[in-house]
Amino acid sequence: MNVAQMKLLIDQCLAEDVGSGDITTNSIVPEGATTFAVIHTKEAGVIAGLAVAEMVFRLLGPNISFVAKVKDGNQVPAGMVLAEIEGDAKAILTGERVALNFLQRMSGIATRTSLLVHKIKDYPVRVVDTRKTTPGLRMLEKYAVLMGGGHNHRFGLYDAVMIKDNHIKVAGGIGQAIVAARKKVSHMVKIEVEVEDLAGVREALQEKADIIMLDNMDVEIMKEAVTIIDGRALVEASGGIDEESIAKIAGTGIDIISVGALTHSIKSLDISLDIGEIKKK
Amino acid sequence: MNVAQMKLLIDQCLAEDVGSGDITTNSIVPEGATTFAVIHTKEAGVIAGLAVAEMVFRLLGPNISFVAKVKDGNQVPAGMVLAEIEGDAKAILTGERVALNFLQRMSGIATRTSLLVHKIKDYPVRVVDTRKTTPGLRMLEKYAVLMGGGHNHRFGLYDAVMIKDNHIKVAGGIGQAIVAARKKVSHMVKIEVEVEDLAGVREALQEKADIIMLDNMDVEIMKEAVTIIDGRALVEASGGIDEESIAKIAGTGIDIISVGALTHSIKSLDISLDIGEIKKK
Amino acid sequence: MNVAQMKLLIDQCLAEDVGSGDITTNSIVPEGATTFAVIHTKEAGVIAGLAVAEMVFRLLGPNISFVAKVKDGNQVPAGMVLAEIEGDAKAILTGERVALNFLQRMSGIATRTSLLVHKIKDYPVRVVDTRKTTPGLRMLEKYAVLMGGGHNHRFGLYDAVMIKDNHIKVAGGIGQAIVAARKKVSHMVKIEVEVEDLAGVREALQEKADIIMLDNMDVEIMKEAVTIIDGRALVEASGGIDEESIAKIAGTGIDIISVGALTHSIKSLDISLDIGEIKKK
Amino acid sequence: MNVAQMKLLIDQCLAEDVGSGDITTNSIVPEGATTFAVIHTKEAGVIAGLAVAEMVFRLLGPNISFVAKVKDGNQVPAGMVLAEIEGDAKAILTGERVALNFLQRMSGIATRTSLLVHKIKDYPVRVVDTRKTTPGLRMLEKYAVLMGGGHNHRFGLYDAVMIKDNHIKVAGGIGQAIVAARKKVSHMVKIEVEVEDLAGVREALQEKADIIMLDNMDVEIMKEAVTIIDGRALVEASGGIDEESIAKIAGTGIDIISVGALTHSIKSLDISLDIGEIKKK
Amino acid sequence: MNVAQMKLLIDQCLAEDVGSGDITTNSIVPEGATTFAVIHTKEAGVIAGLAVAEMVFRLLGPNISFVAKVKDGNQVPAGMVLAEIEGDAKAILTGERVALNFLQRMSGIATRTSLLVHKIKDYPVRVVDTRKTTPGLRMLEKYAVLMGGGHNHRFGLYDAVMIKDNHIKVAGGIGQAIVAARKKVSHMVKIEVEVEDLAGVREALQEKADIIMLDNMDVEIMKEAVTIIDGRALVEASGGIDEESIAKIAGTGIDIISVGALTHSIKSLDISLDIGEIKKK
Amino acid sequence: MNVAQMKLLIDQCLAEDVGSGDITTNSIVPEGATTFAVIHTKEAGVIAGLAVAEMVFRLLGPNISFVAKVKDGNQVPAGMVLAEIEGDAKAILTGERVALNFLQRMSGIATRTSLLVHKIKDYPVRVVDTRKTTPGLRMLEKYAVLMGGGHNHRFGLYDAVMIKDNHIKVAGGIGQAIVAARKKVSHMVKIEVEVEDLAGVREALQEKADIIMLDNMDVEIMKEAVTIIDGRALVEASGGIDEESIAKIAGTGIDIISVGALTHSIKSLDISLDIGEIKKK
Repeated sequence: MNVAQMKLLIDQCLAEDVGSGDITTNSIVPEGATTFAVIHTKEAGVIAGLAVAEMVFRLLGPNISFVAKVKDGNQVPAGMVLAEIEGDAKAILTGERVALNFLQRMSGIATRTSLLVHKIKDYPVRVVDTRKTTPGLRMLEKYAVLMGGGHNHRFGLYDAVMIKDNHIKVAGGIGQAIVAARKKVSHMVKIEVEVEDLAGVREALQEKADIIMLDNMDVEIMKEAVTIIDGRALVEASGGIDEESIAKIAGTGIDIISVGALTHSIKSLDISLDIGEIKKK
Repeated sequence: MNVAQMKLLIDQCLAEDVGSGDITTNSIVPEGATTFAVIHTKEAGVIAGLAVAEMVFRLLGPNISFVAKVKDGNQVPAGMVLAEIEGDAKAILTGERVALNFLQRMSGIATRTSLLVHKIKDYPVRVVDTRKTTPGLRMLEKYAVLMGGGHNHRFGLYDAVMIKDNHIKVAGGIGQAIVAARKKVSHMVKIEVEVEDLAGVREALQEKADIIMLDNMDVEIMKEAVTIIDGRALVEASGGIDEESIAKIAGTGIDIISVGALTHSIKSLDISLDIGEIKKK
Repeated sequence: MNVAQMKLLIDQCLAEDVGSGDITTNSIVPEGATTFAVIHTKEAGVIAGLAVAEMVFRLLGPNISFVAKVKDGNQVPAGMVLAEIEGDAKAILTGERVALNFLQRMSGIATRTSLLVHKIKDYPVRVVDTRKTTPGLRMLEKYAVLMGGGHNHRFGLYDAVMIKDNHIKVAGGIGQAIVAARKKVSHMVKIEVEVEDLAGVREALQEKADIIMLDNMDVEIMKEAVTIIDGRALVEASGGIDEESIAKIAGTGIDIISVGALTHSIKSLDISLDIGEIKKK
Repeated sequence: MNVAQMKLLIDQCLAEDVGSGDITTNSIVPEGATTFAVIHTKEAGVIAGLAVAEMVFRLLGPNISFVAKVKDGNQVPAGMVLAEIEGDAKAILTGERVALNFLQRMSGIATRTSLLVHKIKDYPVRVVDTRKTTPGLRMLEKYAVLMGGGHNHRFGLYDAVMIKDNHIKVAGGIGQAIVAARKKVSHMVKIEVEVEDLAGVREALQEKADIIMLDNMDVEIMKEAVTIIDGRALVEASGGIDEESIAKIAGTGIDIISVGALTHSIKSLDISLDIGEIKKK
Repeated sequence: MNVAQMKLLIDQCLAEDVGSGDITTNSIVPEGATTFAVIHTKEAGVIAGLAVAEMVFRLLGPNISFVAKVKDGNQVPAGMVLAEIEGDAKAILTGERVALNFLQRMSGIATRTSLLVHKIKDYPVRVVDTRKTTPGLRMLEKYAVLMGGGHNHRFGLYDAVMIKDNHIKVAGGIGQAIVAARKKVSHMVKIEVEVEDLAGVREALQEKADIIMLDNMDVEIMKEAVTIIDGRALVEASGGIDEESIAKIAGTGIDIISVGALTHSIKSLDISLDIGEIKKK
Repeated sequence: MNVAQMKLLIDQCLAEDVGSGDITTNSIVPEGATTFAVIHTKEAGVIAGLAVAEMVFRLLGPNISFVAKVKDGNQVPAGMVLAEIEGDAKAILTGERVALNFLQRMSGIATRTSLLVHKIKDYPVRVVDTRKTTPGLRMLEKYAVLMGGGHNHRFGLYDAVMIKDNHIKVAGGIGQAIVAARKKVSHMVKIEVEVEDLAGVREALQEKADIIMLDNMDVEIMKEAVTIIDGRALVEASGGIDEESIAKIAGTGIDIISVGALTHSIKSLDISLDIGEIKKK
């Protein structure tokens, strides 16, 4: 996400929360007062989103100093100071919730990703996300997946072909769908096809799909699929994969495991902001 | 959320997903082909967001017919058809993921809220949300809480005063903070103050806080607080409340229970879209 | 109004006035020439909007020095220098009218407010604005009312309940309207109801309205209403109140006087900008 | 103002007033209820802005019927019905204030303009506005001036050259300023110059200014200026002109009278909306 | 380009041209007058952009009938009627130039593309565009290339990896650059590398680049490169290719020819709009 | 074009090209690496757009140093260094194409304009552009015409009256059209009328058109028209004028020559960016 887009998004989120003004802070905190604050974890996890949190405060108080004490992607324990902030007390109090809302969600995603990646660390397999992201936050959520050690699947409907059951139904078959796609799309684009059985695997192979996604298959069938494909396409496993099942699936020889829950079901990481002494101007 | 705002949000989310075009659908589905599709649940839950899903398809295909078969707020079983859609096949396939991303999240929130509300159905207590919402989606998430039978806390920093520990620290005390706020804010605005012990309760009462929030208090202390307050202010309980603890807290006599996890930790409800036969033009 | 919103508004207003370019200034003032300028009053009044004027010039010429010589809220005589500006001559000449258009309107509102506030200075009564503001400028106009010593009523339809005659008609009575509102709205929201006679006052009291607005009532009836209410609700007077009538109304014992004319009928304060010597680069 | 721009402006103004929702109307008016309403004058005046009011309601309730009973530019008495509205009751109640805020301001401007135009109806002179318009509303205010029988001066800094005292100071003289402007600007652009005495008139004439503005001149000097100019340039009078002085100025033989107060000091016309019976769905 | 994006772009372009209003048309054409008009070619070419032209008129006059008489992608002679328009005369006259500006440019691109495609019609080679498009119009220009029988290269920096000389310099070699990219980017993304000689070809092949671009190579060297690559990667030729050289290059056995001039140097196709009789309301 | 508008346009164009990120640069160039780069010509021409190119890089990398070595409007040979850039290597590589896309087009326009201006350097005649500009880029293209030594015609439909054949048809004659326009438009606006023969010239003169445009006339008829007009209006020649015909037309005594091809048919100037050594952080 480039800086201009991130700024625009944060501006909208500040408008959503602050609206016509933070009436509590504005009536209690003296104009020009400064303070010191720390952002710290209340549980262990992998951090993502420090630059977003920083920009929230900078947009509210141009002269705020924000010093990150860890880096995105770091695994940290509970009680860890993530950043030290100093400057306009109003800006810090007003921005607290928006900054934490971003940081907690993104760190929650990074933490969950990291857990899954750890489970398969002995296999040459990538854990990737899907398009089941929160509307409006895709770029940030896909970044959080990277910070957790995962990789990204396509970014949207525009950057790769993914032929699913509905498309196959329309095209009249896997082969026809691949042929139709290849004829129209840019030569720069890869074609992935979702298959449900070994017949589908063979049809996809015949038309030279770049990636074959095995949708909700049994582990034994997956192994057979991998044998049939034999390196002629990348193999992706998908469908209800979790902490329990991931290692077994990684052991089948597939290349990629995609997990929708990385972003469609989010548990925020518990992170807080505490302020210190106020210095009145 | 008014219609113009909702349209703007969906436009942004479609831009995020569709970008320069749905290259799969565009290369496979014939121009002008129409189809029929159903949206149905794959697990039981409370539904929220049908109007958002409908608008996604309408923005992509102006002539699409979208007939909701249930209403937002309905508790439905797995396998329930939520809506029947008919019209341009490209629009339906392109809009599927964005529509489901909204509907699944919002229904996930409504379902979780409903579960908590059910636990306290014998008490005259409201379950309310917080400002720990997903950046950009606050209006939709607060609406989903309503659909689950919950109520809303304030919408942002602009529409009510909430005096927290940091504000008290700056003001030099609970009483001072309330006095400062009342002097400046509109007479239309209520003042809530967060307290951590019974001394705080008494100080807040003395300055006539409209709502007193008991932050992470023991159940026994809460009961005592309710007795002290004796109807002179609304009483809100907050802090790590879940399915386990909620009924016991409701039994203390407080008026409102706020639960951040309603929106900061979301499990999407499993909902799918299936298309039927394609009719080529 | 947060800084991002204010910047956006001013950007739009500069686009409105400057459009494709200030062709007069661009053809006459040499590139890079600098100058000194003063903004000064041509009549006495209360100033509001110096920060807006400053931002106009800063957006046009990033290196412009703008030194305010008075503060918003100050009562100043005619001939007072409000600000000294120094920097890019083109930016100063191009921004002059937009800056003055804001400053003159806002100061006009502050001045009128101040006049009314002065008339009731011996009563414990607030003068407040209404929603009869200029479309697009509500935040700035409500800020100007504060600078004139007034207070703000609600900011919009979103932050407080105001039950008017049309709502009462729909609900079937004052009591029904209050009950319906209390059931649905957040516990953080106050409920005001507009009444036209003493029967209305009693009905509103019975359902515990937070604020009762006496709409266009006679002074004698107002006094009676205040006696009946007896501190159980805030009392607001409204309807065609002006310099003549305000003190008498304040004397009835009501708490708040709302005056639509503060913002729906505006007489700009006469303020000018004069430049000094041009220094060519 | 084209329709897209007007829609954008109204969307912003609805966002400003409605924000996260009209909580009063939403909690009292049943979903789907319809009603009938009239907009009517409470004082006599010239109407402007009916199309804007109509669009406010259409944006809130797409199926609302809005039937104007008079036309923009009509002079109407107090008690006149301006429009009949029928449709969704929520939309009508929520849109009321924004619609009236536009309609009252624009009609106020049209009414004031009409008054001034009437005073000089026996002279071949145009009453025109200035750039002292409300930030963000210039197009609507200039349209209101037309509806009152006035004409428009330039729309902004971009569409005509207006050389004022500050420009003359920079250029080193009236003649030099005109020459500099003519050399650079498009041949499609007219050049107006503001002069303060008869020497200025002569200098402007010599360099063939298209329009000469007599700034705050005595009536006798104006007459002399008109004689000197003798049809070789259009002559505009400006500076503190009001109902008292306008006829005398029109009698000097000048062509145009510009009046900043048409838009910098606005008295809204008193206009109301009343609803009829509610029909529940 | 989805409809919402296209509407937004056209709204901006109408704002650019129409601004505060089409003062010529508004003062001459009676309110409500209707007319008939045709858009026709004044030289032969391939048409692209009819839907854009249609939307321009629809945005200005919602009830305008626009009937296309040919389809995008059709090769037409001079004097061909492309569309018949009927409806509000003001909208048609005001929209004429913006509609033609789009249609002429897009048809110019389609025509030029078609010419090049025709030259190589006997070879199994695609003519593709580049990122040298007009800022803001990339989607429309890439669509025009498709209409001319060409294909699209990547859409931006986001949807495919293209390793150019500057990247190779940074990475320390072709191989290192490919390895670095493959490690980080999604498995859905293809990797293209630009090479200048046969050593580069071999290095790219070794690291399994998906596409190898031969930059400004001699035809003989290109042939040798094709032989070396032998189907293991797609081969793209690039650099100053025009009507003269394209067939010879297609004959080398490469797969793709990219031509920046398709969009960086545009000759608009000559297209006009003529109106018929005006019908006054 | 003011800075805010230019920034907005460039933000959009960066979004168009960079989208979700420059995946090539991001995977190859180390975070924080810096470099030096030069922008230089590969063919001779007149430069325009350096400030736009600079802003592209500044928006991507706030600390980038961009030192222009020539000025807009300079005629430069092939091989000339236009600017030296130093700073964040990612920003420079990511911004390269967008910066060049602007700079090449604008310099192409300036170069073509300069060529035409040179051909008529011995005549007191202006070469001007038209409204046949690229949608979205009018301000930049009109600026480029100025840099090439040309002048600007009107900026849009809003700032001057141009009566064309279609308007004359509607009005019922040249005279009627001029009268209708003069009655309605601001006194600040000039009126130009397009005529096709000497009868038209006479009719336009009689109603005192400010500018008479001779549309596609023979050189001999043009001379006659100039004689008839005799300084009572500016005379503009238009219609298919190119390098061949321009001098002859300038010799007829007309004042202005407008050339649509300056902006409707663009040949970009060949300009490149080369980077130097990368310094890793």
